[in-house]
Amino acid sequence: MRVDPYKVEGSIDYERLIKEFGIKKIDNKLLERIKKHTKELHPMLRRKIFFAERDLNWLLDEYEKGNKFFLYTGCGPSGPVHLGHLQVWYFTKWLQDKFNVELYFQFTDDEKFLYKDKSYEEIQEWLNENMLDVIAIGFDPKKTHFIIDTLHSGILYPEAIKVAKKINFSTIKATFGFTDSNNIGSIFYTSMQTVPAFLPSVLKKKNIPCLIPHAVDQDPHFRITRDILPKLGYYKPASIQCSFLPPLTGSQGKMSSTEAVQGILSTDSPNQVKNKINKYAFSGGKDTLEEHRKKGGNPDIDISFQFLKYLFEENDKKLEEIYNNYKSGKLLSGELKNYTIEKINKFLEGHQKRRENAKKQIKDFLLKVN
Amino acid sequence: MRVDPYKVEGSIDYERLIKEFGIKKIDNKLLERIKKHTKELHPMLRRKIFFAERDLNWLLDEYEKGNKFFLYTGCGPSGPVHLGHLQVWYFTKWLQDKFNVELYFQFTDDEKFLYKDKSYEEIQEWLNENMLDVIAIGFDPKKTHFIIDTLHSGILYPEAIKVAKKINFSTIKATFGFTDSNNIGSIFYTSMQTVPAFLPSVLKKKNIPCLIPHAVDQDPHFRITRDILPKLGYYKPASIQCSFLPPLTGSQGKMSSTEAVQGILSTDSPNQVKNKINKYAFSGGKDTLEEHRKKGGNPDIDISFQFLKYLFEENDKKLEEIYNNYKSGKLLSGELKNYTIEKINKFLEGHQKRRENAKKQIKDFLLKVN
Repeated sequence: MRVDPYKVEGSIDYERLIKEFGIKKIDNKLLERIKKHTKELHPMLRRKIFFAERDLNWLLDEYEKGNKFFLYTGCGPSGPVHLGHLQVWYFTKWLQDKFNVELYFQFTDDEKFLYKDKSYEEIQEWLNENMLDVIAIGFDPKKTHFIIDTLHSGILYPEAIKVAKKINFSTIKATFGFTDSNNIGSIFYTSMQTVPAFLPSVLKKKNIPCLIPHAVDQDPHFRITRDILPKLGYYKPASIQCSFLPPLTGSQGKMSSTEAVQGILSTDSPNQVKNKINKYAFSGGKDTLEEHRKKGGNPDIDISFQFLKYLFEENDKKLEEIYNNYKSGKLLSGELKNYTIEKINKFLEGHQKRRENAKKQIKDFLLKVN
Repeated sequence: MRVDPYKVEGSIDYERLIKEFGIKKIDNKLLERIKKHTKELHPMLRRKIFFAERDLNWLLDEYEKGNKFFLYTGCGPSGPVHLGHLQVWYFTKWLQDKFNVELYFQFTDDEKFLYKDKSYEEIQEWLNENMLDVIAIGFDPKKTHFIIDTLHSGILYPEAIKVAKKINFSTIKATFGFTDSNNIGSIFYTSMQTVPAFLPSVLKKKNIPCLIPHAVDQDPHFRITRDILPKLGYYKPASIQCSFLPPLTGSQGKMSSTEAVQGILSTDSPNQVKNKINKYAFSGGKDTLEEHRKKGGNPDIDISFQFLKYLFEENDKKLEEIYNNYKSGKLLSGELKNYTIEKINKFLEGHQKRRENAKKQIKDFLLKVN
């Protein structure tokens, strides 16, 4: 297993990550506390897909005292958006709606340029594509501010050097496994990812709590952020971490758009989704219909079932029914796949419609300064 | 001896630097070629104080073909300006006047913040002070553009990452002697110092030759610049290097404002100059008047004489006369000091008058973008 911002591979042991990263498992007491404010719990909370956190109780203390937080999450624009991205962003929208808070959304085009074998221009093209997907999530444009690392470097860099002055290369080596062959931009980069966690406090000239929803592989960046911010006079950001939407081929690693078998993309047509699920989605079913009817399938390793659980079946009872019927053999793999395909396509139909209209909205979302 | 952007110490062996840095000694043939364009030669050229160069013949080839260059030099704002700074800047003004070219003047406030034990605010104060001195040099505001690294980071950072992607930490270690304890901002920084060498080409959308006048300790930065620029499709910058104005106390190292005995500052009063020269300026004279009259002094190690040679006695005949009279014992140390004090004070009087008027001109000098 390896889990850091630059590599996720192997069979992910979340209990081990909790220990190694020093994050805290979300328990039912905390869920109840969240529910007091949100009335209902998001399926990804009920199902412990968002499974860990840092300082969430402190954040709610502040919130209850009337000290509102802001949300900070982001996107590294180097390829098409897949379901794994949407997972975090739709959950972030739910947080924005329920707590009625501002969201600062960072596009790390500098990071992707520095880490990937892609030209500056290619990255800018993906940036433009990816912004459409983020807008399609339905964030409130009045409360959502896109920070693009290159476009906004005029306000980011002067703050990033204050962060950078407090981090030496030994720390970077230990945190990300870098070596002397890393380029000096990639070495500096984590400073830029730290800035949005306190930029609203700079802009509004007061200390504002921050909550970062993110997939757990990004935690090393934010460990550094949490280490540095108090030294600059700001609150440590709170965070909430989700587990990885698995790739089509099984439970190792995470969904990606660059692996041999590409994940399901936000722009996939109904037919593409159908083909990807039918052809690649790892099945927990038995080899023959007879055997399946007799012995039942395994929903815990079945990727279609996992997709329903992560994103596409909001109804807990219905999900449980599917689980039980698949396990007993009553529900066949083909039937489960068809149901999942239908659900994904319905979801993507809405997303793609909103994405179509997003182009003219980009400028409304860009962070304005001065 | 150590000579790099972060330390100059010991007795400077310029012949060794020429070999180690791979720069080229300026010969009389090149001086004649420059003179064709400038009609006369600046004293710092005649006296080989600007003693080395890179690609200056190429630059003149381009100039003669009608392909004008721009000048790029700078200032690290972390303390008061002293005569060693003025040396390079007044020479740069001469180049601007004689060749009628644009000057991009970089203030590396990020560098000084990242390398010095000073707060962001202190550095900003020095930035404001130092800009007054640069304006007082008398650069043409229509042809001179101040680039302040933090203020202009919106245009610098997106270009700096293109540079940074092509430099790994091994190169930085070898070039500047850095270690894993360096902060990650200082590791990235040389990318920012490279940008002005091609920024005018970016802004004007055509490849423009660049000439960098600088003290020889900055050469390691520009070696990297010369290595990277062709990879980004730009000309290698040409450069012209000067030797160091010695410190008051003798010929080791260079003048500085942070040593125990501070150099002569641009803002020193006539009395301060008088006291510094009388009290500290290392003398090549003999211990007693009788001995001096008999055996003569040594102008080559006399700091007052060096100041005249570097900056304050433009007349070659007069300088030679002083040299000979001091060497023969006709001119006494006290007389030489008095003459030098007068010369410095006359020079500083003009500089300080222009400096007074500089405050209201800052905005005319700031690089405008879009």
